[in-house]
Amino acid sequence: MLNRRKVLGGIAGGAGVAGLASPALAKGTRELSMVTSWPKNFPGQGTSAERIADSVQRMTDGRITIKVYGAGELVPAFEVFDAVSSGKADMYHSADYYFQGKSSAYNFFSTVPFGLISNELDAWVYHGGGQELWDEVSAGFGIKPHLCGNNGVQMGGWFNKEINSPEDFKGLKFRMPGVGGEVLRRLGANTLTMPAGEVYTSLQSGAIDAAEWVGPWNDLSLGFYKVAKYYYWPGFHEPASTLCLGTNKTLWDGLDAFDQNAIATACRVENTAVPAEFYFNNMKALETLVDDHGVELREMPADVFNAFGEQTEIVLKELADKDAITRKVYESYVSFRNDVSKWTRVSNGAYIANRQLFLEKLLKP
Amino acid sequence: MLNRRKVLGGIAGGAGVAGLASPALAKGTRELSMVTSWPKNFPGQGTSAERIADSVQRMTDGRITIKVYGAGELVPAFEVFDAVSSGKADMYHSADYYFQGKSSAYNFFSTVPFGLISNELDAWVYHGGGQELWDEVSAGFGIKPHLCGNNGVQMGGWFNKEINSPEDFKGLKFRMPGVGGEVLRRLGANTLTMPAGEVYTSLQSGAIDAAEWVGPWNDLSLGFYKVAKYYYWPGFHEPASTLCLGTNKTLWDGLDAFDQNAIATACRVENTAVPAEFYFNNMKALETLVDDHGVELREMPADVFNAFGEQTEIVLKELADKDAITRKVYESYVSFRNDVSKWTRVSNGAYIANRQLFLEKLLKP
Repeated sequence: MLNRRKVLGGIAGGAGVAGLASPALAKGTRELSMVTSWPKNFPGQGTSAERIADSVQRMTDGRITIKVYGAGELVPAFEVFDAVSSGKADMYHSADYYFQGKSSAYNFFSTVPFGLISNELDAWVYHGGGQELWDEVSAGFGIKPHLCGNNGVQMGGWFNKEINSPEDFKGLKFRMPGVGGEVLRRLGANTLTMPAGEVYTSLQSGAIDAAEWVGPWNDLSLGFYKVAKYYYWPGFHEPASTLCLGTNKTLWDGLDAFDQNAIATACRVENTAVPAEFYFNNMKALETLVDDHGVELREMPADVFNAFGEQTEIVLKELADKDAITRKVYESYVSFRNDVSKWTRVSNGAYIANRQLFLEKLLKP
Repeated sequence: MLNRRKVLGGIAGGAGVAGLASPALAKGTRELSMVTSWPKNFPGQGTSAERIADSVQRMTDGRITIKVYGAGELVPAFEVFDAVSSGKADMYHSADYYFQGKSSAYNFFSTVPFGLISNELDAWVYHGGGQELWDEVSAGFGIKPHLCGNNGVQMGGWFNKEINSPEDFKGLKFRMPGVGGEVLRRLGANTLTMPAGEVYTSLQSGAIDAAEWVGPWNDLSLGFYKVAKYYYWPGFHEPASTLCLGTNKTLWDGLDAFDQNAIATACRVENTAVPAEFYFNNMKALETLVDDHGVELREMPADVFNAFGEQTEIVLKELADKDAITRKVYESYVSFRNDVSKWTRVSNGAYIANRQLFLEKLLKP
């Protein structure tokens, strides 16, 4: 584990190329530091951080290099925000809901229960005012945020007790952090948070009755199928958990248009690469879980899902009451969700449902 | 309309910068030509082509410029493929199903009825072998293809007759081109193709009973709501019509890694930008159609959708019989669809359906 900064933030070289037609390319080399909330090269999140670094390096023809630090190498996983805010590191790669202690508004730039799916989120951030609000919130902490992918709709979780009605959550010991965990608490669940390593043993010992993690790809590698009976779908709590590249704003503002474009472009590329990678690997892992490990998939009953929705409304409204900027973000996000759901209903929603009905007949064994 | 090529394909300059640390940047300027199948700056498709040109120019710091030609300026809309294949133009921006006359396989790289939605398509192209097959098909025509966006699930179309059963398609005069049109023909419809300008007057005069175009954004501007009673949802025929940047392969192979990366990256960026732009504008246009113009939305009955599916299976299998490479692509695409639909069912499908049930209660007037 590295305890001190090993990067150079300054500009070196740059002399001796007078007369070159391309001013942006006439500058010297520069090394930036990226701190992350993931283990180095963690599949999905960690590998995406590395791709951003590689992409910026390629686009600047090696003039900018970015050194990527795994969680705990330069700073601990959840101190990356402070590190970038203070200038100790140049950029972080993380999920902004980890920083809801800084502002409750960060939940909406990551994901909230009953929130936006991938397509909707991109529409809100790029066209519906989301990026401007995100810029406003993060500017208060000296950070420039860029959306760089999301991992899609999550599963409902691993359960050792059947869920037949909202009543079944009373007293249920459930590992779920964040806003989703708060919603379950309102239904009477005893929600807990714990790191990945403890989830397995807690399910095994019966210390907890249920746990959600992410989705098939990540869940398979953690082996939860060995210690839980049912894998419930879908999750209500994280429909598109985004990743964020947060760059120190003083650094960002000092970059010229060419270098800003390289970083923004690398993030845009990940905004299609990350969802594609998760979609593919979740598909494959779900097959493995069901076909090779005999995992029993269970659909969350509709009235239970509805009960999640009712409590979500209350919890999100309480979040909005925290401060003025969170209210502004909440109002933008929720009204966008309510509007866009009308288009999603007649497009993706209806198409997927009807195609599914047909494929079930077609593929019936 | 321009009838002759006004671009320079060669490399100019490049001398006098010896000793620069960045070899990719030490080259001269270059102007490439991009022919498109859209009117210049046509909202959505045409503007995306311009963004690709701008993006490559920015990433190369102005060293590569791309001159974008609207349909008919250098070559007609559907001759862009031949123009790039022959080297008359350097790249095309189009939708590859327009070139199914070259190979039936091109349908699968664009969209087919009951095919992949946006997330699934990206997973297939980037991780499921789709890009490799696309490269193989296009290499036969001297073209290197890049995915650069899709416009999402389309609407079912504008109708002046009600659809209550598959029988209602018998004798129906319906404007729908391509594979979707062939599926309707199997159901007894009299399918026609005609350009946008004629669709309006044909609906108005009763020369046709129904027409599909794209979705609310494009359909609103064409005014179909003035001459058709019902707007049916969802479409079965084009769940994610992709855009393609096809580059002359000799040109592509001669580019160095820096320039290839700039073009590929510009396409990746559009693969998130185009769906977001369509999603946002479709949402807004649907609101306008319903709230301001009183358009009556109708859901396509489930047994009609199922009948579309049955005929689609037959039509796609016939496509696969055309030649060996189309069969190879068909098998990859259809088996991927069947596999990925299991993940889509428990993630996007179930989440959208359950959220919708809740929001309908919440937002009930």
